[in-house]
Amino acid sequence: MSDVVRIVEVGPRDGLQNEKTLIPTPAKIELIDRLTATGLSTIEATSFVSPKWVPQLADAADVFAGITRKHGVRYPVLVPNEQGYDRARSVGADEVAVFTAASEAFNQKNINATIDESIERFRPVLERANRDGVRVRGYVSTVLGCPYQGEVPVADVVRVAKRMHDLGCYEISLGDTIGVGTPAKARAMLRAVAQEVPMHALAVHFHDTYGQALPNLLACLEEGVRVADASVSGTGGCPYAKGASGNVATEDVVYMLHGMGMQTGVDLDRLVDTGRWLAALLGRASSSKVTQARAAA
Amino acid sequence: MSDVVRIVEVGPRDGLQNEKTLIPTPAKIELIDRLTATGLSTIEATSFVSPKWVPQLADAADVFAGITRKHGVRYPVLVPNEQGYDRARSVGADEVAVFTAASEAFNQKNINATIDESIERFRPVLERANRDGVRVRGYVSTVLGCPYQGEVPVADVVRVAKRMHDLGCYEISLGDTIGVGTPAKARAMLRAVAQEVPMHALAVHFHDTYGQALPNLLACLEEGVRVADASVSGTGGCPYAKGASGNVATEDVVYMLHGMGMQTGVDLDRLVDTGRWLAALLGRASSSKVTQARAAA
Repeated sequence: MSDVVRIVEVGPRDGLQNEKTLIPTPAKIELIDRLTATGLSTIEATSFVSPKWVPQLADAADVFAGITRKHGVRYPVLVPNEQGYDRARSVGADEVAVFTAASEAFNQKNINATIDESIERFRPVLERANRDGVRVRGYVSTVLGCPYQGEVPVADVVRVAKRMHDLGCYEISLGDTIGVGTPAKARAMLRAVAQEVPMHALAVHFHDTYGQALPNLLACLEEGVRVADASVSGTGGCPYAKGASGNVATEDVVYMLHGMGMQTGVDLDRLVDTGRWLAALLGRASSSKVTQARAAA
Repeated sequence: MSDVVRIVEVGPRDGLQNEKTLIPTPAKIELIDRLTATGLSTIEATSFVSPKWVPQLADAADVFAGITRKHGVRYPVLVPNEQGYDRARSVGADEVAVFTAASEAFNQKNINATIDESIERFRPVLERANRDGVRVRGYVSTVLGCPYQGEVPVADVVRVAKRMHDLGCYEISLGDTIGVGTPAKARAMLRAVAQEVPMHALAVHFHDTYGQALPNLLACLEEGVRVADASVSGTGGCPYAKGASGNVATEDVVYMLHGMGMQTGVDLDRLVDTGRWLAALLGRASSSKVTQARAAA
């Protein structure tokens, strides 16, 4: 199996959208430019959801227009619908991400739709993107548990992932939104999905709420996945458990991967520096253990 | 492979010895009694090192005499030499633990002795214990890195572990003292040691300083180890990086193991309660992510 792992840095979007401290637009631009300088090859830049839903990212267009895009680096942006797609395209985005959940209860609660209805809602985005030559990434959330329905059947995860892939998503990111999963379940879920969607089109997205993000990632790497989402400084928290940990810190993922002889192309020192800078901006300690250990040393 | 994992709870010794806040003797006794009630089968109770070295555990004899020992539960105590052994025996300890490091530089710096000299120092303890029918556990520290010499050759770990086993230690706990290891290295180290010491006589002891404790444990479980050290509430910190994380939290280990369908005999709810109680006593937040997530939920 390949020893190259592609990290999808989701801090500027998934991380910041759950942070209370409002970050000024120039600082968001600096964050993304700093992340580019670390060697990351995919950086989710922002979200074109309604500013009413996510005030932190109301400046999405300005952020995207302001960053210095490096050749060879992808900067996907989240779009919930055609309106978001239009806004993203108007500032030159050439990769977007759409999202749904594997849990019926989660979709009902969040967007008042069934899973199938939620897919129908972003289907026009996928059709236009495919025509426009815009790459689309798909997020499936609650793949290992749901704050409303608890257990999520693996068959539902498989069905949703396959549907998104069939509709044209080049990559499906499987997210343990509430961080309750453990390695054997994560591996079994990935294995089941990989029977319907090629492994090279799958990514894993772990939250560290229960401390399981890295062991889950390890199990999935052993299973063959080679794309992992992470958030610099572990920003984001958990919207379903205020005060708990959110996205796994990119620094800790890179430390583990490099320690295992895997290649990410990321300069860990620069990444740690960027995480520290961001934590200072947010007025709190970094959630990265690597950063904490280095600060303490 | 067996799905039963024995957890060696080291909080009352390895955890507390690195905590600044002095815990009164009755609270230490209550801690151990609470841990007994969680279903843990091995609880390292205290240390009979010189009070000059570890003031926190100066009350070792009183603590050990005060706890309610449950039938079938082991309560090993750390002893550095024959004097400590005498003190431990005088209060009825029937299992002790001895320690050395796999790193020459670490032994030199800490006890001004070579590895071989350090082994000679506790050799009389082992001889007496073997005669007395006292079980001896052996700790090998710095198995994946040393704060003074950096890399530690796997051959040194193997040699020290084998020597301790040959001298009569029924179990050798392999410790990543500074928490720098990553899963592939942890697995390779364990595999090498297991060629000279039976796997059933090996335990792993991970610190979470760089966030790698659970992935390292997972890799070692896959390799066949079935004994893991952990510390309730993740107490202890890292003496070589002030402010960094220390022992992996028992709560998080149990959560992972149970999630994987493995059996520990531990009641996670009671363990989380005990960890919270201890954290309050220490005047700080628990280092357990499971406990943090539950508190936040």
